[in-house]
Amino acid sequence: MEMHAFGRLTSVDVARRRLLAAARPIDRVESVRVEEAFGRVAAATVRAPFPVPSFYRTTWDGYALRSKDTAGARKDHPVDLRVVGEVFAEQSYPGRLGPNEAVAIATGGAIPNGADAVVIFEEVERSGETVRLRKPVGRGDRISPPGHDFPRGTVLVRKGTELATTELGTLAACGVGEVAVYARPVVALLPNGNELLTPGAAPETGRIFESNNATLSAVVAAAGGVPKPSPPLPDDPVRIESAIRAALESADIVLATGGSSVGERDHLPTLLPKVGRLLFHGIAVRAGKPTLAARAGTKLVIGLPGHPTSCLVNMYWLVLPVLRKVARRPGPGWVDGWAVLGSEAVAPSPGLSTVVPLRFERGRAYSTFRGSSVITSLSGATAYAMLPPGRRRVRAGSRIRVHHLLPPLGPGPGA
Amino acid sequence: MEMHAFGRLTSVDVARRRLLAAARPIDRVESVRVEEAFGRVAAATVRAPFPVPSFYRTTWDGYALRSKDTAGARKDHPVDLRVVGEVFAEQSYPGRLGPNEAVAIATGGAIPNGADAVVIFEEVERSGETVRLRKPVGRGDRISPPGHDFPRGTVLVRKGTELATTELGTLAACGVGEVAVYARPVVALLPNGNELLTPGAAPETGRIFESNNATLSAVVAAAGGVPKPSPPLPDDPVRIESAIRAALESADIVLATGGSSVGERDHLPTLLPKVGRLLFHGIAVRAGKPTLAARAGTKLVIGLPGHPTSCLVNMYWLVLPVLRKVARRPGPGWVDGWAVLGSEAVAPSPGLSTVVPLRFERGRAYSTFRGSSVITSLSGATAYAMLPPGRRRVRAGSRIRVHHLLPPLGPGPGA
Repeated sequence: MEMHAFGRLTSVDVARRRLLAAARPIDRVESVRVEEAFGRVAAATVRAPFPVPSFYRTTWDGYALRSKDTAGARKDHPVDLRVVGEVFAEQSYPGRLGPNEAVAIATGGAIPNGADAVVIFEEVERSGETVRLRKPVGRGDRISPPGHDFPRGTVLVRKGTELATTELGTLAACGVGEVAVYARPVVALLPNGNELLTPGAAPETGRIFESNNATLSAVVAAAGGVPKPSPPLPDDPVRIESAIRAALESADIVLATGGSSVGERDHLPTLLPKVGRLLFHGIAVRAGKPTLAARAGTKLVIGLPGHPTSCLVNMYWLVLPVLRKVARRPGPGWVDGWAVLGSEAVAPSPGLSTVVPLRFERGRAYSTFRGSSVITSLSGATAYAMLPPGRRRVRAGSRIRVHHLLPPLGPGPGA
Repeated sequence: MEMHAFGRLTSVDVARRRLLAAARPIDRVESVRVEEAFGRVAAATVRAPFPVPSFYRTTWDGYALRSKDTAGARKDHPVDLRVVGEVFAEQSYPGRLGPNEAVAIATGGAIPNGADAVVIFEEVERSGETVRLRKPVGRGDRISPPGHDFPRGTVLVRKGTELATTELGTLAACGVGEVAVYARPVVALLPNGNELLTPGAAPETGRIFESNNATLSAVVAAAGGVPKPSPPLPDDPVRIESAIRAALESADIVLATGGSSVGERDHLPTLLPKVGRLLFHGIAVRAGKPTLAARAGTKLVIGLPGHPTSCLVNMYWLVLPVLRKVARRPGPGWVDGWAVLGSEAVAPSPGLSTVVPLRFERGRAYSTFRGSSVITSLSGATAYAMLPPGRRRVRAGSRIRVHHLLPPLGPGPGA
């Protein structure tokens, strides 16, 4: 069992910075119906294609009329108008209003040609086909002009906006049925290792179930990507290389898990320089040192450790911000804050940075870490802290910088 | 334009309570791969189907051996063992370890038959096929037993749990490839009104674009449901009734929008009692009074006002908790809190409850309401307050009870 040593380890900050610099925001655009666009990212600024509403409209139930016919109306000198029709909301009055004519009209209805004001029901006396007014109606009363809600050309949504409920309602209300959004980045997952069994198979002595497909799929989906898991590959460099090359054809990011260390069966360190330009191999972090990455054209290949906890922790602090940049989502996927430690946190390798996954209980933060091979080391974790190299232990009651994972991975800050 | 009056209005609390009492949590179950189960709700408690790991395993790189062979090892009286093979992680040693034999073994590897301890590389001297020990190795050293991570029968996930990253990793690591989850409730959206145009069509005088499909689809998706929007229906009671009956065949909840008031073209108040048992018509709330609901067997038909803001506001405080109950998600979809008003909030109809949609800026809450017909009345709103009847105005600087919408509809509490 031959082992090569890691070369010089790359620091946490440098590793992330190199990956972020190499990550290219997605350019593919697709058109989706507004009813299906919730949570997507607008690929272009959308402006109102026409004024909304497109017509003069009344804002009340009442009678549309010609204001000049009412100019002489007084308490003791009423003016009578003849009701010649009614307009439901969706209709337009077919004719043109003549002198001393009125049309009954419902809120939102289009003002008939010739009319220039509306008087509300409560302000007239109606008998038969006649309405009587005892004061004049001002020109434009109870009428809103075309474009009252949205003038033509109003910016409805800016490029890069994550489309939430009211943005979608605004687009629809302005007649925009489809919206251009960025495609979700495709992330191929390639677990490798002879010891890996697909969940659902029978257990075998010496072998363990592959679980990084499940956890990484969740993080990819939460970051707005499309995960493409695949069955575990054996420790065969030819098969791993061809799987990486095939994945690069259709995926924007390839995440290989396992085979990322320096043993004789760790093939990623020799394969990644063949498919792209190596960005780093070995990070000064615990857990998760055996991590490497390469840029292959405009795409990224990242090799994560096979141990479930190391894999998922590196996915959070290293890959999540990269994924979000590619998906054109703002921010790294977490929000910085401070917390008070509920129990001591220990850095087992003081020369390295230490990732401490944290859960919160009664306002204090507790490490959930129990070992890098057991996934329950992250149960309930909704944030993490990164202890710098040289920090051996942090006492209970200390105030530390923490990074709250955003929903749906965590509850968001302050929860 | 004949109008009937509303009967006695139902209070906000009673309306919600009646709907929640009538809502039936979904019973349909489907099986999904763990890689695709993120965010779903477990339909059964899942236990570890076998111990994990299923075998005796070493926790270090080293040599598996028989501890009794090393009992006499001393600094000045070494014991030599013959290395007869090596075990990679996925293999099991084919034979049985004989006296004074050892097998090289990697972390995670299965302990060969006959071996009962492991000594780590650093504690032996190796030359050729021989390893030399200068102290005894204790029985069971560096070995973890079957079920060390998860004994058989361990509860991995409880029925009703929303499946997050570590739950899915735990299921996979225990060999569970598929998990039973509750189906997402199907919510049919039936906008009606002659004035409605489908977004994407050309504008017409007197007509407006239907936008409730877009906003309600977003809320339904965020609550874990499957929205089924449909093109706007005309004000035709026969067509509306047959659309509601058809939707009840496949949907769990039917949300009709528009036609919910008391005008002669509001058909829902006469149709809902035909398809089910009316729960209420008319809520003592502003905006959103023309809202009604019926129970149809185990399903619900809810009529919401057509005005975009009234529709969406009622969707939040009235329908969202009902949807979540049907989807078997915990809680109403918001978290209660307190906020300080940044500017005065006014109740225009003091006899009714008033929904005040709120956005937050520098720690203070501001109403976003600009009128019930313009959807931008809710732009940036991430919470709402419900002013009780009789509360005419709340001054800037007052502390009020607020309801923060949960992600992805809002940022969650404290953001």
